[in-house]
Amino acid sequence: MSVHFRKLALIGIGLIGSSIALAARRQGLVDVISIATRRQDTLDEARQLELGDIYTLDAAEAVRGADLVILCAPVGAYGALAEAIGPSLEAGAILSDVGSVKEYVHKIVGPHVPDGVRFIPGHPLAGTEHSGPSAGFADLFAGRWCVLTPAQDVPQADTDRLVAFWQALGSNVECMDAAHHDMVLAITSHVPHLIAYNIVGTVADLEADTKSEVIKFSASGFRDFTRIAASDPVMWRDVFLTNRDAVLEMLGRFNEDLSRLQRAVRMGDGPALEALFTRTRAIRRSIISAGQETAAPDFGRPHKASPAPDLSPLREHGGGDDA
Amino acid sequence: MSVHFRKLALIGIGLIGSSIALAARRQGLVDVISIATRRQDTLDEARQLELGDIYTLDAAEAVRGADLVILCAPVGAYGALAEAIGPSLEAGAILSDVGSVKEYVHKIVGPHVPDGVRFIPGHPLAGTEHSGPSAGFADLFAGRWCVLTPAQDVPQADTDRLVAFWQALGSNVECMDAAHHDMVLAITSHVPHLIAYNIVGTVADLEADTKSEVIKFSASGFRDFTRIAASDPVMWRDVFLTNRDAVLEMLGRFNEDLSRLQRAVRMGDGPALEALFTRTRAIRRSIISAGQETAAPDFGRPHKASPAPDLSPLREHGGGDDA
Repeated sequence: MSVHFRKLALIGIGLIGSSIALAARRQGLVDVISIATRRQDTLDEARQLELGDIYTLDAAEAVRGADLVILCAPVGAYGALAEAIGPSLEAGAILSDVGSVKEYVHKIVGPHVPDGVRFIPGHPLAGTEHSGPSAGFADLFAGRWCVLTPAQDVPQADTDRLVAFWQALGSNVECMDAAHHDMVLAITSHVPHLIAYNIVGTVADLEADTKSEVIKFSASGFRDFTRIAASDPVMWRDVFLTNRDAVLEMLGRFNEDLSRLQRAVRMGDGPALEALFTRTRAIRRSIISAGQETAAPDFGRPHKASPAPDLSPLREHGGGDDA
Repeated sequence: MSVHFRKLALIGIGLIGSSIALAARRQGLVDVISIATRRQDTLDEARQLELGDIYTLDAAEAVRGADLVILCAPVGAYGALAEAIGPSLEAGAILSDVGSVKEYVHKIVGPHVPDGVRFIPGHPLAGTEHSGPSAGFADLFAGRWCVLTPAQDVPQADTDRLVAFWQALGSNVECMDAAHHDMVLAITSHVPHLIAYNIVGTVADLEADTKSEVIKFSASGFRDFTRIAASDPVMWRDVFLTNRDAVLEMLGRFNEDLSRLQRAVRMGDGPALEALFTRTRAIRRSIISAGQETAAPDFGRPHKASPAPDLSPLREHGGGDDA
């Protein structure tokens, strides 16, 4: 299905917004891109990067005449944004977003959507630990999933248009219920981030000399956690404020399992430990088979030493063998 | 300092043992490499890969005449191995290992070390999630740390020789107290692995349909955890059986912090969440400055889509921005 929009309005121009701008432009999906953001310096940066055609601090102005509007701001800002842009949205326009939670978005934005505007919240499962307009790149969505959770009254033809848009950006697209999205993401994304933030916080509280050694020897496993704990703080604050129930449910399961595992360590229960550690390997293999990961060691991190210490390579934990 | 050994005996030939063999041979550090392992099929594989010169199922035979012996088996096997090889160790030989815990190794192997043998346990902080003789490569140790914990009676000259050996393999070397090593590794490596195993286990217990979606959408964060939860089960069982006290101490701290964080989520305490998430970014930056990690997004995972699903690229969580 070919897809084209006259005017794409991006409200927020961080990692995701800027990547959408670059990819939509490269694929020729839009005539005009208007960009609104809250802060002047971010707007200036977007202009300097030539991400769009129209730049404004006024979100309502940005959406005027747009047939596709995508909220790319932190979810916590959606309520005020929706109120501000609601009256300026054109009949027939598609209103979407890229937030990591979806039920809350329906609840907070839905009431501000005028009749005739097609409200199709979305969530591209793509990103890196970097943020800001300069972090974006046109290939960010290539081969990644994008989940859409259309409001009940949206005509299928409009959902199909947005599906085609994301496919043209390189994504695989799936439509589902917002609550179901939030539960799946709680365990695949939100709880892992919470845990990563937590352990990095535990390390931050260590005595200074131990902490410096932890950093020095971080390649033994801790380092992987710091990457996801380096993600955008405001975005993640909003995730936990707006997907609380699903996060607490999955965190409860995690905690129960951890108590049991802690007890196995305390009791020296070798068979229980080995059984769990064997079982978890199968999940990794499923993910690789599902095309969601590389089988290359260390995520394909570079494997050769380099002379400069700040470019040195990247490896984990001591291995073991079966001798 | 130039370093050379007549005969290197590797007891165990998994990821680490095979990498030592390949690197030592490439650097011309040894005349003869003898390899002992418990299982015939592993030994056959090592022979087929031409990792050494002498292959045997008898560890005592392997160490005879060796001036450098390195235990590369799971730590749980050390007691029996030490008892078996003790009487065959040559006076003046260096006995070392590559295990992830060090106090236990001193305790369990130490009593079997004859007078005149230099006992210098070691731990190369290197590895991948792959295991077995074919997983090894000569660059594994390049730019990585190796920690040595020499027994008190070891002459400095012998420690210097082993330091030079690891440096010749490409490692940075640091000597420290065994108990201190175990505490630092508990938080940098052992607890992160335990947590990763735990959350992957939680997912494995989900209902089948949800589990398949978790795998499908794993790129949003969970995927990173599965990598370290795919590490060798027997090796990791032994880590938790032999570094129990330090692991439980650090896990206790982690749990206290997680309770507090869980409460912040439950109470909707945005400022507390944002403050923690901001603080943890600094730790990531320290690790990158310390040369222990790449600043490239996604660990430098490939960024272009590929047509085949099992080669498709690799990206995390939805990003956010500051609009």
